[in-house]
Amino acid sequence: MAKDLPHVVVLGAGFAGLTFCQKFRAPARVTVVDQQNHHLFQPLLYQVATAGLSATEIAVPIRSVLAKKKLTEVIMDQVTAIDLGAKRVTLTQQTLDYDYLVIAIGGVTHYFGHHEWARHALGLKTLDDALAIRQRILCSFERAETESDPAARRRLMTIVVIGGGPTGVELAGTCAELTRRVFKRDFRHIDPSQARVVLLEAGPRILPTYPPDLSQRAKEQLQELGVEVWTDAPARHIEAGRVHVDAVVLESENILWGGGIIAAPLTRRLGVKLARDGRIVTEPDLSIPGHPEAFAVGDVAEAMDARSGQPVPGVAPAAMQMGKHVAKLIAREIRSGPRPPHERPAFRYHDKGPMATIGRSRAVAWIYYKVKLSGFIAWLTWLLVHLVFLIGFRNKAVVLLEWLYAYVTFRRGSRIIYARDMEAGRADRATRQEAEVSVPPQKTTAP
Amino acid sequence: MAKDLPHVVVLGAGFAGLTFCQKFRAPARVTVVDQQNHHLFQPLLYQVATAGLSATEIAVPIRSVLAKKKLTEVIMDQVTAIDLGAKRVTLTQQTLDYDYLVIAIGGVTHYFGHHEWARHALGLKTLDDALAIRQRILCSFERAETESDPAARRRLMTIVVIGGGPTGVELAGTCAELTRRVFKRDFRHIDPSQARVVLLEAGPRILPTYPPDLSQRAKEQLQELGVEVWTDAPARHIEAGRVHVDAVVLESENILWGGGIIAAPLTRRLGVKLARDGRIVTEPDLSIPGHPEAFAVGDVAEAMDARSGQPVPGVAPAAMQMGKHVAKLIAREIRSGPRPPHERPAFRYHDKGPMATIGRSRAVAWIYYKVKLSGFIAWLTWLLVHLVFLIGFRNKAVVLLEWLYAYVTFRRGSRIIYARDMEAGRADRATRQEAEVSVPPQKTTAP
Repeated sequence: MAKDLPHVVVLGAGFAGLTFCQKFRAPARVTVVDQQNHHLFQPLLYQVATAGLSATEIAVPIRSVLAKKKLTEVIMDQVTAIDLGAKRVTLTQQTLDYDYLVIAIGGVTHYFGHHEWARHALGLKTLDDALAIRQRILCSFERAETESDPAARRRLMTIVVIGGGPTGVELAGTCAELTRRVFKRDFRHIDPSQARVVLLEAGPRILPTYPPDLSQRAKEQLQELGVEVWTDAPARHIEAGRVHVDAVVLESENILWGGGIIAAPLTRRLGVKLARDGRIVTEPDLSIPGHPEAFAVGDVAEAMDARSGQPVPGVAPAAMQMGKHVAKLIAREIRSGPRPPHERPAFRYHDKGPMATIGRSRAVAWIYYKVKLSGFIAWLTWLLVHLVFLIGFRNKAVVLLEWLYAYVTFRRGSRIIYARDMEAGRADRATRQEAEVSVPPQKTTAP
Repeated sequence: MAKDLPHVVVLGAGFAGLTFCQKFRAPARVTVVDQQNHHLFQPLLYQVATAGLSATEIAVPIRSVLAKKKLTEVIMDQVTAIDLGAKRVTLTQQTLDYDYLVIAIGGVTHYFGHHEWARHALGLKTLDDALAIRQRILCSFERAETESDPAARRRLMTIVVIGGGPTGVELAGTCAELTRRVFKRDFRHIDPSQARVVLLEAGPRILPTYPPDLSQRAKEQLQELGVEVWTDAPARHIEAGRVHVDAVVLESENILWGGGIIAAPLTRRLGVKLARDGRIVTEPDLSIPGHPEAFAVGDVAEAMDARSGQPVPGVAPAAMQMGKHVAKLIAREIRSGPRPPHERPAFRYHDKGPMATIGRSRAVAWIYYKVKLSGFIAWLTWLLVHLVFLIGFRNKAVVLLEWLYAYVTFRRGSRIIYARDMEAGRADRATRQEAEVSVPPQKTTAP
């Protein structure tokens, strides 16, 4: 590989980082670093959590996506330090000197300062998070089937989703479908239609960034699926198997966290200006103030949209557009020489409007902030948009097939509990026993 | 559920147990117990281990398969004891009294008395085994990409498969394809065609139960794929990263065990006559001597084929036929009254002959012990047979699609490393460090 070419280092292969690599065309070496070997299609993660898709259907190896980019190298490793002054990135196995840096390390689940809640309320940010939620729900219903104590059975069959944003709404909707409709044929002793799904929203309405009438439609569609939607219901305290909502205590073995995201913790050690939630405040061109050769894109960036003057939201389309913007910008500089940040083009976000699904054939969408859609037509729109954006042919075809099949038959193809999931389940139970809630332990003996 | 009906308890939902449940038609309650929630299509497990299929594609929830059997109940639990005299099975959560018992608990990986080898040589019996092998190989090649020491890199890029039976041959063939052909496009620093796959067989030829000319054809086909086939090469000792074959020491981070299976350990506590490897010796009708209402089927049974007078082999078709035989037998007894074992029909095994695949388009088959096939035509035959036997429409369609796609493009859709795989990888490394082999540890810090 030509060592004398400029070197671009990209940290993270989420939507922003991967789009950068795909759109970047210039005589330069590119090194992309990610701690995973795969790119994850996060908007469908809730489908893995609720056994609608299998994990490999929404993930694709980064090496495969970039195999044809001969000047691009993929390293699976963790970033331990970034020295913006020395233009050097340290990994656990090596250091990388760069001419241009693209920080696209994304975010982590945010428990609003209550780290201890992470033990009891499962977040949804990685494939492992999704598999953990799936095993929790599947194992709970398996345990409910043989549980003779009615109170314990109710606790096992109750799912509480905290947070009424898009993630919480999607999770609650598919959980209701899975437990109340898909499971219906499978169990003999319990009645899955007695399963309870509660969605908790601290504010006065779910989907608070949507117009009030769409929030209302979303709420009605969730209720049609059997979800209890509690608004003005902040979770004050979470412990093992219990959520305290002011005076009310919800007992549940399946507490899911649909709350917020903050920037990956590494940003705190950069020595640059950070915004709320640790995001890196960028110049209009997405470069980092004082470091014109370093950029922040995606969920890790606090950027202003030059079009609207509003902060760019933390959604996949915005991340992809930021990646593309910086790819073009750096390519132009490499070809035509550097320019100061204020002479570079500012990032303009093309916002097609928000959309969220609510289960099998329901959704709400606000196309270009003009056309409001809800119900089946909104769901079809959502389906088409997501299929178009899915990266890699294989996934697109298989996901379509899975969805069609699930839609026609109401079966769930991915309701598989791995043995190590059971191990995790046992660990959970051990934890709960520490908390002095009596659930009988299971032995690990054969068959 | 009608409590006064006879109660049939089935232990295990592998090929034998599940086929029993599907073929059993009589006025009786059936309870099937399995420690997993899914039935596993074991003949394709090596495809999951080598990232050709994803785990959910060869597994199907037992509840789904049996959803329409209204008198059949599925319990996910472990069997802790069987009392043949009292006709009672004890689980961790409850006890079950039976009128008829079908023991179909299968086998576990057998290290020929060297339990300590299990730490170093990965077996292939469960989905978790397959995922463990997959993560080991994927992580080894990721580590090789950033490894600067040539000896360490060679060790990471060497795969040793122990045992030249069908499992070992299938594993070695697909490992060679994965590492030498599929990985080729993906890596920049290492040359995957330098990957080394060694198949060790203790005896004079691989596939020893096949005729010698098919063994020879299998060996040639493996060699075409780049596999080194070592015969008369027993593994004398296995330690972390090393296999001792007499005086020769093979260094490898990827040691896979394609060796034998013994019956699940529970059989030792039954107080009945056991054969080699702990299998339950059965009467010709597959009942357990002295217990005409209890049967052993599948890999846990040591049965004689009434047709050939030979022991029934431990393969999927034999297990399915045993399950069907006992299903018909018990149904007839429930309808027409019990008969003593010697008046019942003896089990006759319809053997269509053995077949084994060797990678992408190669196989050997011996149809009805008459027609010998090898190469592409044998592989097509193998493909058709396995598709026909795959249980559940969805899996059949998706597996076909995956195979066609993999066949056309040589891509592997399932090369996903989960974070917990990385955790496991770190644990491996820690173990290896105890063994005083220096591999640098990785930190868990972000991004």
